[in-house]
Parts: sequence; structure tokens; C-alpha cells
Amino acid sequence: MSAAPPSQPPLALTMGDPAGIGGELTLAAWARLRAEGPAFVALDDPSRLAGIAAHLGWEVPLASVSGPEEAAAVFRDRLPVMTIRCPVPPVFGQPDPANAPAVLGSIERAVALAQAGRAGGVVTNPISKATLYRTGFAFPGHTEFLGALAGAAEPPVMLLASPMLRVVPVTIHVSLRQALDTLRTEEIIRTGLALARGLREGFGIPAPRIAVAGLNPHAGEEGAMGDEEPRLVLPAIEALRAGGVDAFGPLPPDTMFTARARQTYDAALCLYHDQALIPIKTLDMDGGVNVTLGLPIIRTSPDHGTAFGIAGQGIADPGSLVAALRLAAEMAARRSSKAPA
Amino acid sequence: MSAAPPSQPPLALTMGDPAGIGGELTLAAWARLRAEGPAFVALDDPSRLAGIAAHLGWEVPLASVSGPEEAAAVFRDRLPVMTIRCPVPPVFGQPDPANAPAVLGSIERAVALAQAGRAGGVVTNPISKATLYRTGFAFPGHTEFLGALAGAAEPPVMLLASPMLRVVPVTIHVSLRQALDTLRTEEIIRTGLALARGLREGFGIPAPRIAVAGLNPHAGEEGAMGDEEPRLVLPAIEALRAGGVDAFGPLPPDTMFTARARQTYDAALCLYHDQALIPIKTLDMDGGVNVTLGLPIIRTSPDHGTAFGIAGQGIADPGSLVAALRLAAEMAARRSSKAPA
Repeated sequence: MSAAPPSQPPLALTMGDPAGIGGELTLAAWARLRAEGPAFVALDDPSRLAGIAAHLGWEVPLASVSGPEEAAAVFRDRLPVMTIRCPVPPVFGQPDPANAPAVLGSIERAVALAQAGRAGGVVTNPISKATLYRTGFAFPGHTEFLGALAGAAEPPVMLLASPMLRVVPVTIHVSLRQALDTLRTEEIIRTGLALARGLREGFGIPAPRIAVAGLNPHAGEEGAMGDEEPRLVLPAIEALRAGGVDAFGPLPPDTMFTARARQTYDAALCLYHDQALIPIKTLDMDGGVNVTLGLPIIRTSPDHGTAFGIAGQGIADPGSLVAALRLAAEMAARRSSKAPA
Repeated sequence: MSAAPPSQPPLALTMGDPAGIGGELTLAAWARLRAEGPAFVALDDPSRLAGIAAHLGWEVPLASVSGPEEAAAVFRDRLPVMTIRCPVPPVFGQPDPANAPAVLGSIERAVALAQAGRAGGVVTNPISKATLYRTGFAFPGHTEFLGALAGAAEPPVMLLASPMLRVVPVTIHVSLRQALDTLRTEEIIRTGLALARGLREGFGIPAPRIAVAGLNPHAGEEGAMGDEEPRLVLPAIEALRAGGVDAFGPLPPDTMFTARARQTYDAALCLYHDQALIPIKTLDMDGGVNVTLGLPIIRTSPDHGTAFGIAGQGIADPGSLVAALRLAAEMAARRSSKAPA
């Protein structure tokens, strides 16, 4: 994993919920990355960041910048911040709907910078959906909001990437019963195509191998337990193969994530949330990165939440945010090297 | 992990399907355990075992014995075998219903030896249900057959144990949809009680901590995705706690198997097959052992199938069978040390 070349525009890092761990993670990520990059600009409230640094006894000098263009030059010495003011002073662990305009404004600003080519990509700190809902926020989640802002043509696809495994769930934040009720061959195909494209363009894998999970124990054991494999999954695999994607399966879910099995594919296409999330989090709790495929911009995020319960203690692990910043920079470098001159 | 004390009766190891990898695993397990034990007696066809050893070029001298009592003395120098003849010569990879009487006879004999106290426990090589069904075998699986033979009062409970994790699925070999449709509070309670007893008696954990999984993503996020957590799971946890079992949850399924989370419990109670099997196999493909709780005898088995595709090649990993033999011996030692004189 190499840092982005210096010619790459810096990344835009959002505030997240200011009552959560986002602020301290931003400070810690800067300390880890200042020497080698990738550079980023925080779209955040400088007074709250300075307050967190003082509270934790961390020395993080800030640089107020007017755009990402100024961020690269100062990044080694100071954390560049484009100011987004919080309407009320944030309190650790106590999310306040009054700060929603800052939370959302930070995301909107980051997306606009990436769309204009001024930022290499967007990396988001975690938000609190429950808090935003109280202010009339109308999107199911962070990713859907980004999709709308960025003008995505199709629903975005969530890829989770760690050094050991990449997974994509076809259904995400719905109950397990609803996942069963709504699983469709068309959606498996659409997700598989987005995954294949994402692996080619974002990860530099020319002919990605995609392992497709079965739904039932032992992938149904030839119809002995459930019929979804022949009825829904196999037709999707055949369509993907007909479309030139090296997809195979359906595989027994319990044995497809072993070290040996993982050697045979570049990503696993999973049918429900926990089929994808259990193996990647079990293998690597802190190194996972969430990548949003299917957006016209690059977007990654750490694979954890606001962690209100430990905010302000300086104990939150910045590993996933650092990995998210590195991966976004790698993806941006690949995209710009492929772009027509 | 220590070997069983010499006073412990040897274990009874069944044949499994003679067209699968069971025979070569039995030979390899003896080679690994002959020096330190635990001793076992194979209930198998000596001519087929000798044939496999010759085929693979392995030197495994056999000792024909009339009972486990003779096995301990010869175990260091020869593999003790109580003869069960195969009606037709087994062919690698080609299961033959004509050998079903030997497959089933081996299991029946092993259970009888354990019930009589002549064997410390039963360890089973994998069978082929599909082959046995063609002969009129009327049990859903190996475990249910053993339960009937051993006179179990309740359906047995399947525990999977590895050095890193212990898991029990409440529903097992049914489709995911059927698992949702049949999940009941009473069954979660029954399984949790059997698990707690098994951990106390078989694993020597006086006050086992049991982590109970939620069913939905993020354990339903307070009703946002599915209602099974408050409706079915929480009442079971409360009943277990009222019964003196240190059960807690429901936990978000994706984060409950991380290294950090695993420190907080002795076993995870899971609601469906892959919720339990994905994490344990992802962490440790070859070291997992299947333990049947709720039987009046001790029974363990390797956590893999007949592997017809590689039978006779000598490449199957005996790690899980060796672990199953060691664990059975440990459980037998604990049980006998607790038994009234």
C-alpha cells in the first residue's frame, strides 16, 4: 500500500457527529499520516477540534485553509481545516440535533469538493442517524444521502474491505426476514456488476473473481434445505458469467471464508448483512474499510459507528479511519491514472 | 490439553462411510496419538484399513482386539481394531449402500461400549446421509441416530468447539427461512440450559458465560429492523438468567465474534446454522470439533464431511479428528472424576 502521489488532490474528511469519536480520530489520523500522507483536509469546526486536542493533551496544530489546494503544503506540520461551525458546543456522548446543519453541511461540502475535482475523494466520519432523523433527515442512511448528493444513477453498493477479505452484501439494513423476502436475482446481478466494476476501477484488479454465497446451510445441499440457490442465486451467477464476470457459486456460506477458500476469489458477494459482516469483522475488527461503489466520486469510511460511550477518552482506535483514508487515496490515484488526459 | 489418565477406558472410534476419508484419518490419528494418547479402538474392517495403509505406503500395524480393555496395552505399538466387516470392498469416493450395515453397526457397537462404561466416549468418522437414506435409514442425521441409540431424553444439542471459540446453533439443518419460521423462545431456553450444563460438566467451567446472538443486523437496532430480539430472544435470556445461567445479549451478530468480544464469554448461543458456523470455520477450519451435548454418553466428531473427492489420496487433514479424540478424552476424564465412587 503506497501513499498517493503528491500530485493527487487531498482527500476531504467530514466531521461526523461531533458528540462521537470522529474528532479525536481525525486528530489521531493526522498524527499517523502527516509524514507520509495521504494528505486530507478536515471539514470541521476548528474550535471543537482544538478543544478535543487540549482535553486529551494532544499537540495538533491546526491550519485554517480555504480549500484543499492549500492543504497539501501545510499537511506535514498542521492539520488543515475548512471551517464548518457547530451551532452549539458539542458535548461528548450527547448528540444534539441542533448540530445537524454542521454534520450535513460537512458532508455536502466534501461531496461538492470531490465532484469539482478539488478533493481526491470523500472520507466520512460516523454520523448518528437517530439524531438526524429528529431533524427531518429523510434518507435511510449516510450512503443514500451521499448517493443523492453525488447524483448516483443507481442505489450505491456497500463494499467492506480489509487486508484479508472483501465482501459485499446484496441486502443491507433490513431485518433478516425482509432480506429473505426481498432477495431478487436482478439485485444480485446488479450488485455483482457494480462489484466487478469497482474491483477493476478502484482496486486495479483486471479480471476480478467473485465468489457468490448460497443462502442456506451448505448452500441448500441440492435442494434439501431451501430452494433459493437454484431459484434465485444460480440464475444470477449465470447472468453475471454471460456478462463477462468471473462469478462462481453458490458456495456453502460456512466454508467460503476460510484462509484457503479466500485465496480463490477477490471478493465475496453475500446475500444478507451478517453473512458478509460476520466474517470480515471476525477476522479484522479494526482494519475494515467501508467503500461505497456506484458513486461518481470516491467515498470510503471507517467500519464503525459514533461510539458515543467512549467519545472524548482518546481510546478509540483510529486504525479503520487511517485505512479508509489510505484506501481512498489509492483508489483516487488509480482513477486519475486511468482518466483520459 | 492433557491426555486422558491411563486409568480412563479407551475411546471408541467409528468407521464412518468406508468410501470417504475416515479410514486414512483413523490411521493418521493413531500415528499422531500413539505416544501420548488418548488411546482409542477403531470399530472398523481390518482388511480395509490394512488396504488403505498399503495403498498410501503408511506403516500402521493393526491389532485385532475383542474389546477396549485390550486396546490401551497395545495402542503404543499397534492400532487396535474391533472387527466390523464391510459386506463389499469399499471403493474410494464411491459410497455403496451395501456397506450401510457396517457403517451403522460400527456406530451401534461404539454406543453400546460407551453405555456399558467399557469405552470412555464415542468419536465418529463422517457418514454419508444420502447413501444411508437409500437403505431406509430413517434419522435426519448422525446425531439423531446416536441420540436414539443412547436413549437421550431430549433432542441432542450440537456444540462446535475450537481453541478460539465455542458456538451452539439453536436451529441447525433447516433452510434459513425455516429457521426464522421455527425459532421459539422455548427452544432457545432449552438449548441454553443444555449448553450451560455441557460447559460445566464437559468443559469444567463452573459458571459459564453465554453470549446470545441477536437475529437481525445490529441485533435489530431497537426495533428498527425486525422484532425477534424483544419478542423471542430477550425473554429467553431472562428465563435463562432466572434459572441461574449467566446469559447476556442479544448481541449484534457481526461484532460478537471479534477477538476482543470473545474474551467476554465461554460460548456463543446462535440462532441459525451459519451464524454459528461462519465465525468458527472462518477462524479455524481444521481445528473445530463437533460435540453432542445432551446425550448420556460422550460423543465428539470432526467438523467435516466424508470428502469423497479426496478420499484415498492421503491429503485429508487429521487435525479435526485428533482434536475430537483429545476433547472426548478430556470430557471423559472430567466426567469420571465427578462421578460418585
